[in-house]
Amino acid sequence: MSESAQPFAAVTFLTDYGLDDGYVAVLHGVVAGSAPPGTRLMDLSHTIAPGDIRHGAAVLSAALPYFPHRSVHVAVVDPGVGTERRAVAVALGETVLIGPDNGLLCWALDALAHRGEARAYELDRPEFHRHPTSATFHGRDIFAPIAAELAGSGRVDRLAEVATEVPAESLVRLAPPRNEVRGEQIVTEVRTVDRFGNVQLATGAAELERIGAPLGSTLVLSWSDQRQPLPYGMTFGSVPVGQLVAFIDSAGLLAVAVNAGNAARLLDVRPGAAVGITLQE
Amino acid sequence: MSESAQPFAAVTFLTDYGLDDGYVAVLHGVVAGSAPPGTRLMDLSHTIAPGDIRHGAAVLSAALPYFPHRSVHVAVVDPGVGTERRAVAVALGETVLIGPDNGLLCWALDALAHRGEARAYELDRPEFHRHPTSATFHGRDIFAPIAAELAGSGRVDRLAEVATEVPAESLVRLAPPRNEVRGEQIVTEVRTVDRFGNVQLATGAAELERIGAPLGSTLVLSWSDQRQPLPYGMTFGSVPVGQLVAFIDSAGLLAVAVNAGNAARLLDVRPGAAVGITLQE
Amino acid sequence: MSESAQPFAAVTFLTDYGLDDGYVAVLHGVVAGSAPPGTRLMDLSHTIAPGDIRHGAAVLSAALPYFPHRSVHVAVVDPGVGTERRAVAVALGETVLIGPDNGLLCWALDALAHRGEARAYELDRPEFHRHPTSATFHGRDIFAPIAAELAGSGRVDRLAEVATEVPAESLVRLAPPRNEVRGEQIVTEVRTVDRFGNVQLATGAAELERIGAPLGSTLVLSWSDQRQPLPYGMTFGSVPVGQLVAFIDSAGLLAVAVNAGNAARLLDVRPGAAVGITLQE
Repeated sequence: MSESAQPFAAVTFLTDYGLDDGYVAVLHGVVAGSAPPGTRLMDLSHTIAPGDIRHGAAVLSAALPYFPHRSVHVAVVDPGVGTERRAVAVALGETVLIGPDNGLLCWALDALAHRGEARAYELDRPEFHRHPTSATFHGRDIFAPIAAELAGSGRVDRLAEVATEVPAESLVRLAPPRNEVRGEQIVTEVRTVDRFGNVQLATGAAELERIGAPLGSTLVLSWSDQRQPLPYGMTFGSVPVGQLVAFIDSAGLLAVAVNAGNAARLLDVRPGAAVGITLQE
Repeated sequence: MSESAQPFAAVTFLTDYGLDDGYVAVLHGVVAGSAPPGTRLMDLSHTIAPGDIRHGAAVLSAALPYFPHRSVHVAVVDPGVGTERRAVAVALGETVLIGPDNGLLCWALDALAHRGEARAYELDRPEFHRHPTSATFHGRDIFAPIAAELAGSGRVDRLAEVATEVPAESLVRLAPPRNEVRGEQIVTEVRTVDRFGNVQLATGAAELERIGAPLGSTLVLSWSDQRQPLPYGMTFGSVPVGQLVAFIDSAGLLAVAVNAGNAARLLDVRPGAAVGITLQE
Repeated sequence: MSESAQPFAAVTFLTDYGLDDGYVAVLHGVVAGSAPPGTRLMDLSHTIAPGDIRHGAAVLSAALPYFPHRSVHVAVVDPGVGTERRAVAVALGETVLIGPDNGLLCWALDALAHRGEARAYELDRPEFHRHPTSATFHGRDIFAPIAAELAGSGRVDRLAEVATEVPAESLVRLAPPRNEVRGEQIVTEVRTVDRFGNVQLATGAAELERIGAPLGSTLVLSWSDQRQPLPYGMTFGSVPVGQLVAFIDSAGLLAVAVNAGNAARLLDVRPGAAVGITLQE
């Protein structure tokens, strides 16, 4: 039985293509050729560090929950383009994600899991790809054409006609970031650093509670061979300008910032760096 | 009496969020959930220097006059997010501006003053905000939801239902940039520096006339302990490649450029720097 | 006889304005005032190196073939703004290009030549420009207003009413990039360098065939006083991480990359650099 057609609210794009070279525009152009006028073409970020799948996965999972459910999300951070890695699409309810099967989609799928059972498809039917299909630009030749097919049809179940269903559990997953409580210490890592130099850790309020650290207490951040006490407040403005502060950020994770400053630069840390959190005695 | 509903032409966004981290996408996503397909989501700039309210205010006031009147403009440069500063919206005729009450909106309100009397509202009704409301991302949790309410309703006067009117004269204003004529000198400052290194000053043709400097004359720019003669021409191409030139720019302000070069780098000046302009004897 | 009106699918923009200063937003705003809701406003790139006409022309010609035919493309890389260079528009079938007559459009016109005979127009009718017309921002005052006229009318032949037809062969052309086979060597140049550091040359498969270099052979790249052997493969992943590889890229041109690395940095080459390609003995 076929779903009745209804325009998708949006087709979104996340890549590591950058905005300089016109590659993103080509994806937009391909989809604009098929999407009805009521379907918005929207961008998440195109300045994911080149080939940095974990960074792409983090940004994707943070942004997608805020988009209309009836959307197609194209994500391309694809250092293995043209090799054996699969091209895939995954539907959860009215939401479809399209990209390489290299783990890029996995955290977003977790974040959207409540929308429905994940159904995965391999994009293995060349008659729905662009020809000649280049070995280095599957965004243009495979991912965008499949997004265009969906947008043009207005049906999620169009996927079953343009691709082959595969077990959702066969999708590649990234190793989760470190985040565990060992006695009185949270052992975790830097998840992202944003434009403001805010350092987001892969831990949150639940772990802070387990080490007995209430709002208003002082935490100790340890990394490399350094240690730094941090007031645990509500926001940047909880401390004077230039001071460090820890707070639960807008994604529900523990973050370290400098009021009107750049914490990542001050602490000299990068995504993936191992850090510990304890409660100051 | 209620205004009849009619889609806004656009919802626009200006922030200091940068384009790397997906924060802007979240704003877009929130508004896309409510805006009708005929309302465009558009961007002004997202690379305002972090926390630089004056820079944001200058870009906002320069761009807004060129947008359709029936638009909602969301602006977020908000170093005080989560502290006591108010969140506000201001309507002038069919145009609505939304942002923190820290002066960011004030020059744009001046530039659009002819569109109608400014009516200001405090965004103090939590039932129209997103919950849980974070202390650090009011763009997502307060400003975008209010923009979404307006866009979804197609009515400017929806503001009176989702916020509380406050006196327009209570809005925070930025100190205006220096710009005065003292005898034979214009005492002013650098207002903006653009991608081309063009140095826009906070003065214009009226002040040049008061010091008796006609097109074709030679001006003397003084700053720090330096002095530089400048031909006062029409455009970059009025002088040979590599030469400095002063001209009235597209915003009606006096600017200094190097033909096919970068004046800001050559002169080593930044926004806010004090400068003087005299007519060469 | 007049064409019947039908909305354009898109108005696109390519400039060297950057994304920081709000100039691009002004173009969008001007066109949004006239374009019907079904006409998308789309961006190609705004970070063309300031004044770099050849770079702009390369990005434009690479991207436009992927957009819907019924589109208006505005391109502004215009170091001669306000001087004697003409402002022009060119129609090919349902596609219209608008920009300065400095060569910026020429390679895109070549790439789209199969869409129809090029008809060129000079934008010499001030009654269709914005007033006062600045000497430095023809994007806002001439190019965007003409794009808005076309978008608002939904007719390509509106051009004949707002501009004056001129011979297409009078349009300025850029010198083509070097690309010739001299005996057993291809003498060519670097055409573009992208975000990944991939070095695109101005030569392709036809020239490689003429020097007898099949896929799987080893090429020798020579530039400055250096020489570098390169396996000629299919994609980045054809070689181990960190290794150089040559391949035919998604535009059909020979490119040099480092798998998971940056070839431009490794080789220290820039667009325009002269290079030779031979088959290794």
